[in-house]
Amino acid sequence: MIQKLVDKIKKTHAPICVGLDPMPEYIPQHLLKQAFSEYGETLAGMAEAIWQYNKAIIDAVYDLIPSVKPQIAMYEQFGVEGIKTFQKTIDYCHEKDLIVIGDVKRGDIGSTSAAYAAGHLGKVKVGSQICTAFDEDFATVNPYLGTDGVQPFLDVCKQEKKGIFVLVKTSNPSSGEFQDRIIDGRPLYEWVGEKVAQWGEAYMEGAYSCVGAVVGATYPEMGKILRKIMPKSFLLVPGYGAQGGKGSDLAHFFNSDGLGAIVNSSRGIIAAYRQEVYQKYGSERFAEAARAATEAMIQDIDGALRAAK
Amino acid sequence: MIQKLVDKIKKTHAPICVGLDPMPEYIPQHLLKQAFSEYGETLAGMAEAIWQYNKAIIDAVYDLIPSVKPQIAMYEQFGVEGIKTFQKTIDYCHEKDLIVIGDVKRGDIGSTSAAYAAGHLGKVKVGSQICTAFDEDFATVNPYLGTDGVQPFLDVCKQEKKGIFVLVKTSNPSSGEFQDRIIDGRPLYEWVGEKVAQWGEAYMEGAYSCVGAVVGATYPEMGKILRKIMPKSFLLVPGYGAQGGKGSDLAHFFNSDGLGAIVNSSRGIIAAYRQEVYQKYGSERFAEAARAATEAMIQDIDGALRAAK
Repeated sequence: MIQKLVDKIKKTHAPICVGLDPMPEYIPQHLLKQAFSEYGETLAGMAEAIWQYNKAIIDAVYDLIPSVKPQIAMYEQFGVEGIKTFQKTIDYCHEKDLIVIGDVKRGDIGSTSAAYAAGHLGKVKVGSQICTAFDEDFATVNPYLGTDGVQPFLDVCKQEKKGIFVLVKTSNPSSGEFQDRIIDGRPLYEWVGEKVAQWGEAYMEGAYSCVGAVVGATYPEMGKILRKIMPKSFLLVPGYGAQGGKGSDLAHFFNSDGLGAIVNSSRGIIAAYRQEVYQKYGSERFAEAARAATEAMIQDIDGALRAAK
Repeated sequence: MIQKLVDKIKKTHAPICVGLDPMPEYIPQHLLKQAFSEYGETLAGMAEAIWQYNKAIIDAVYDLIPSVKPQIAMYEQFGVEGIKTFQKTIDYCHEKDLIVIGDVKRGDIGSTSAAYAAGHLGKVKVGSQICTAFDEDFATVNPYLGTDGVQPFLDVCKQEKKGIFVLVKTSNPSSGEFQDRIIDGRPLYEWVGEKVAQWGEAYMEGAYSCVGAVVGATYPEMGKILRKIMPKSFLLVPGYGAQGGKGSDLAHFFNSDGLGAIVNSSRGIIAAYRQEVYQKYGSERFAEAARAATEAMIQDIDGALRAAK
């Protein structure tokens, strides 16, 4: 799957993913009104509004980008109905040939991680049948439990040609509380980065490994070091735009081949219509605003990569 | 909620929770056959089998214990249908007045953790309505992202009188890979334990805090130290029984008041009928075997606590 991601990035010149994190306050009133009139102000009503919102955005941007990253929490908060929309969103993205990075941040003891890996990336056995559940292409994984919590994901990646991104240095303000603590002269995130490189060695597809890492755009200096520690890992870079990262901060997250990173923007794209610069679209034309913001993001990052050459 | 847990432990003399981790290989053939005949060998069929399995076990043990701990991965692997059974299981446990510890190990950046906290422990706003989704009583939380990934759970705990257990030292073999690394002379898990104590200070109910910690039964020496670092936190102790922990290893996880820990057993209870000692029950009477195993576990731990006095 990492090779497919590389191919699609080369084709689109867009090393980005659009974060499908549909926070309720981003959803335009007319979509909420329509969904509530059909399903009531219920979890099912909200799930329908999220689905219509996602679908319009996917339709507006799918030809520009290689991948999307739905954040499962934004669906899971609405229970079973929300999870139905998460599944519908994945399936629809696959219809549009988008690579789906499930931002699930799962991770547990071995047998439990095996269940997460099967449900999100692999297959499950039901009697004599083999079924798929969520079937994302990549998932994000939390490393706190160590190798035996990650190995089941690696096994499924190999079998199904999927991939993972392991949390190494996250984009949030307090990420340093544990991740930056110094162990034998180096911060914890570097030790996790070393492990990611090691875990990934046996799972190569072309020049890159199926095992990538999450490294926040908000920490460009650390990104520069982590880029070198994990030369064969793709870095999934959240925190661009709304969280503070800019294209010019991001050049060092990439390798000299112009690859090796995929930058996520969520709010900055899906809620672009709420920004002053896109206000001419208004909330009715939110999907067009998302397309304009996607084009601007691609130019910003492509420009930064050219300037860095 | 921690006070309710204390009250129920005192009433039942059972500082335990039964782990509702219905791995497919535990489910007796007759339940699978019945569910598949109704729904086919589909995700819905497996979800129905899990539900019937859970329901029988809950019916057999609910009067003996204060709490259950469903591991969401075992449901999530079967997609939307599995999540429906997760929800039904929570609701049914609440009907039986059991405290439900959602073993979800979620944790993300602030705004995303807020969504998880709302969906699992709190309420969500839908138009003018306030709805609940999963509505567990406690959730397990991963600390890798630091304070701002935990704070939204604390806010919901305060508002809804719920609680969390933060992963400190997990029960799996490779937990030490990062958790045991030495930072300023002390292992990472102790630093996380210090944070748990600090996070919990402002969220007290009686003698205990709403902020507990996960500490594996498989590491009793570390449990002894962590008990002292977090005197006001309940420790959720997985790894008893099948993972290797014994009652006599567990005395130091408790405070001198005989409280402060809750020991989980999953396989050892729900799949007891597969053990030699309970084979007289056979797979048809799996729920009776679960009850017998629950009684034995309570005696083992109660005995260890008495011996330690």
